[in-house]
Parts: sequence; C-alpha cells; structure tokens
Amino acid sequence: MDTEFDLISRYFRRAAPAGMLGVGDDCALLAPRTGWQMATSTDLLIEGTHFLAEDDPGSLGHKALAVNISDLAAMGAEPLACLLGLSLPRIDHTWLAAFTEGFHCLAQRARCPLIGGDTTRSPAGLVISVTVLGQVPAGQALLRSAARPEDDIWVTGLLGAADVALQLRLGKLPANPDLLAATRDALDRPDPPWSFAPALAGLAHAALDISDGLLQDLGHILEASHCGARLDYARMPIHPAVSRSGLDPDVIQRAVLAGGDVYQLCFTAPSEARDEIQACARRADVLATRVGVIREAPGLHVIDAEGQAVSLPAGGFDHFS
Amino acid sequence: MDTEFDLISRYFRRAAPAGMLGVGDDCALLAPRTGWQMATSTDLLIEGTHFLAEDDPGSLGHKALAVNISDLAAMGAEPLACLLGLSLPRIDHTWLAAFTEGFHCLAQRARCPLIGGDTTRSPAGLVISVTVLGQVPAGQALLRSAARPEDDIWVTGLLGAADVALQLRLGKLPANPDLLAATRDALDRPDPPWSFAPALAGLAHAALDISDGLLQDLGHILEASHCGARLDYARMPIHPAVSRSGLDPDVIQRAVLAGGDVYQLCFTAPSEARDEIQACARRADVLATRVGVIREAPGLHVIDAEGQAVSLPAGGFDHFS
Repeated sequence: MDTEFDLISRYFRRAAPAGMLGVGDDCALLAPRTGWQMATSTDLLIEGTHFLAEDDPGSLGHKALAVNISDLAAMGAEPLACLLGLSLPRIDHTWLAAFTEGFHCLAQRARCPLIGGDTTRSPAGLVISVTVLGQVPAGQALLRSAARPEDDIWVTGLLGAADVALQLRLGKLPANPDLLAATRDALDRPDPPWSFAPALAGLAHAALDISDGLLQDLGHILEASHCGARLDYARMPIHPAVSRSGLDPDVIQRAVLAGGDVYQLCFTAPSEARDEIQACARRADVLATRVGVIREAPGLHVIDAEGQAVSLPAGGFDHFS
Repeated sequence: MDTEFDLISRYFRRAAPAGMLGVGDDCALLAPRTGWQMATSTDLLIEGTHFLAEDDPGSLGHKALAVNISDLAAMGAEPLACLLGLSLPRIDHTWLAAFTEGFHCLAQRARCPLIGGDTTRSPAGLVISVTVLGQVPAGQALLRSAARPEDDIWVTGLLGAADVALQLRLGKLPANPDLLAATRDALDRPDPPWSFAPALAGLAHAALDISDGLLQDLGHILEASHCGARLDYARMPIHPAVSRSGLDPDVIQRAVLAGGDVYQLCFTAPSEARDEIQACARRADVLATRVGVIREAPGLHVIDAEGQAVSLPAGGFDHFS
C-alpha cells in the first residue's frame, strides 16, 4: 500500500532552489529579494466543475499551474515557487506520473518550483489546489485600480481560440476536428506571459488576466479605476484558425470579446511606453497588441472598423451564475 | 442569484493590514520583515475524509485555519496572512456565515488575516483549501533535521483529548456525553501555540506539530536528524478529563502516544534553554512539558515510571493507508 510519504517522495519532491526549503518539513521557506513584495494567489480546481475525470492528466497538471502563474503575471510579478494540494479518489500511478510531469515541466520552464503541498484522499472526485508565490518590486505591482484616462489598452497573445475549442468540445459548435486541433492547446495548455509580465511592473498601469473574458475583465479594471474605455474590434489579435474558420462572425465576436479561460493579459499603459512595451514583448517572444484606449467617461464601448458601435455579448463566466 | 463577487464581498473581504493588498486583485501582496524568510504551508480538507457535511460550520472554519497556523508554529514562524479556497455544493448563507465567522475569528486573534482566495462550485462535496504565510528570522526556522543528542524533548498543551473525542464520536468507545463534552474542543477547536512558537526560533532546535500522533511525528524528527529518543510516559501532560475518565490504561496510552489531530508542538531544545523556554511559555499562557530526551543511538523507546519499556501502539494516521 502506498503511503502519503511514498507518493510525496515519488511524485512531488524535487530539489529546492538555493535559499529555499522545499517539500518535507511543516512549511516551505523562501524570501523575496530585499525591497520586493511577495505576490500570492490560490485556485481550486474541482472535477466536474473545472475539468472532467477523463481529461488528459498532463494537460491538467500544466493548466493547474498555468492559471495561477497567470495571476502572478497579472500583477507584473515574477514566479518564485508554488504549493500543490491534491486530493485523489484512488492512487493511479499512470495518472499521477502524467499529471506531475505536466506540472513540473511548466514549473521548471517558468522557474516556479514546487516547494510544498498536501496529498489526501477524496471520496467523491479529484480536487487540485495550487498556490503560487511571486515577487515584484515594492510599489510596482500592476493593480486593477491603476488605469488612467488616455492609457492604451493592450492584450497579450491571441484571442478566440480557447472559447472556440470549448464550444466545439461541448458540442455547441458543429464538429470540426481540424479547427479543434488548431485551437485546443489554447484551452488545454495555456501559456501565460510569465517572462514578459515582470517587465511591465513600473511601465504599465493596470493589468489582469482574461480568465473571465475580455469585456468582463476589462470591466473590472474600469470599475476599480473609475473610468471608461473604447475597444477597436478591428485591432483584436484573433487566432488565425478562428479568423479563417468560416464560423459565423457573431460566434467569433463572442469568442473574442467574451470568451474566458484566456490566460493572457489585458493591461493599460501610457502612450509614451509603446516602444518600450513592444521591445520587451519581442525580447520575451510575446505578442502584445494595442486594442483600445481608456477614457475618463464611464462605459465600455466597442467599435468596428467603420467606427460603428458593436453590439456586445452578455456577460462573462461566473462560477456561481 | 448570488455571483462569486457577491459572496466574496459578503463573506471574505476584510480590510487588509497596512502594507498588504488583500482580496480583490489577481494576487494579494505582502512582505516579510527585512532579513526574515517567509514560511508557507497548504492543506486540503475534503468532506467525507476530514469532516462531515453535518459538522458544525463555525468549528470547521476555525479548524481549517488552525491546522495551518499549527504548521507555521512548527517552524517557529509568526503568522502573517492566509488564503482560503472554498468549493461549495450549494450556497447556504447560514453555513457560510458561521464558517467564515469561525475562520475570521481565529484569523483576527492569531493576526493571520485573510488576504485572498478562490470560491467555486463543487458538484460532489465541500472542499476547503487553506494556505498560510508566516515569517521567521532567516536561518532560525525550526527544522525536523535539527535535533541533537542530549536535547530535551518537549510538548506543548495537553495530550489524549482529541483522540478520545474522535473515538467517542466514531462509537469506538462507549458513549460518554460528559467525557465528550470535556474533550471535544481539543478535536474541534484546536488552539495551536502561535504566540509561543516564534519565541522558540533561535532557542529550540527541531520542531513539528503532532498532527499524526506523537510517536509518528517524533519519528519524523529522529529520521531527519539521524538520532534516537527516550520518552518518559510518566511525564506526559495527559488531559485531566482523559486521566480521570476510567478508560482502560491501554486506550489512554494509545490516545496519548499515537493519537493524531493534536495541533500542538513537539520540539527539541538544549537543556540550557529550559528556564527561558518555561518563561516564554508562561508569557504566552502555554503549557510546555519536558517529556524525554534525544539520544545518539537510533530507536524510539518509551519508559514508564518504573523505567520499564512501554509496548508501543502501531503507527499513526496516514491519509492513504
């Protein structure tokens, strides 16, 4: 019979980086650089709500960490370390090996090593909790409340693919294996801009990740910053597989503006910072696109290429509605 | 319909202490004192494994945080802040109000404010994840590997009550309402020595909390520190309701030596530190008792008042065996 200790040493324990204490004591130990703050966030992923038992375990391990690293990126923080809580209905070594491989692989790439956690049995279904710890120079974190009128509005990465993949998988769009193959990685293996985001601290103003959809998430910035915005739909960096999919333009527009599960950033920055932002994005191999502007007057308006108002899809994703 | 945002503002959001950013952005922000390290730990509590749906929600809120604060205490760290992940089968305002009251009440008393989290729906059962963040002077954390031969072995608080309450509740001991009333708080409302533990950093050597039972947990220290120990059963601070319960001495001995869920410390310290440890314990209103000694020779021996070997109950609690 495998004990909790066997599982920890087989799947979770890795050498901790210099200056940290990792898995094996009551707590992990780490320190931010002198004069820096720690940023921290936690997510709970529940079987049946956020994923299904039959989902690919490697992708699940990757995504469980990615959605949390995305929260660090949204503060302009660089990853330091993470904690993993895992509750299992049964011990399935094939599943555990693939899950932890997906998790550790991103952890290593993003320099966010696993330094602690909890493993336990769950009678009902699989539960994954991830807590990330990052660091950002004191006072430079990108807050939702920091957008200012005339700021450019930027997004990183491409929009529309995660939502199209989800709708295809749910059968809400007609089956299209080629389109699913081209969009599924956006949904299953999101790659938040962890190497680019720290460059925004001290350069950009407000930021968040597009987990609930661009309109809803930008709405959080506008509410917290007491301002409004205009988005130019023609500027949106739509995933090319979505643009050329032949899907109804309204379906694409909904995917781009309201589709959630996009672990990329929406941020605002003064127009003087445009060149430096683009230079940082090139260095990090991240696509950064200006899609609109913050305005003093409240309200969120989207205009098309002719300057006409685009009618907006209702709401984003809420975990309880 | 309550949205996730409604629940957050009603039950979870509290003013963050000066210098921290609390609930409401992608991450919380905080910093340890200059020259201190952060200590962090996470626990997953699952309905059906760690608690039952009908358990008192106020006690559950208290205990979910207490077991994590206990991990900080076991490093000699003082609490800084915590994160709460909560996954709910349904929204029950009576339950949520009582749970968060129990949680916030301990958070305030232990100066461990809630600064972030995640709330989501769970189809199967209630899931609680708590992550704590604490701070300890760099290099002074109490590690499991730091016990040295001739160290005194100490425990805080009283032993035996949590296990007796659990056995009574499981029906494994004959029903005894008075005994249950006298012991249930040890199980349901554990009060880890969070105000005493930071005084041990720099004074004691090794420490951990007695979550899996004294013998198993001390075994972890001995294994990590490559040494052995002798415990004096006659010195054990047995809860008075247990001592005078009339229970079979073997049942009591098992509860004292192997009973888990005791969120108190077992720690080792040089004999020169005895007076200072007792003075610190008095100031913190914590009972600290010397119960044995670390020895160079491997092996864990328990002797009775006559110096005779006590036969040991098998193992502690493992979440997968």
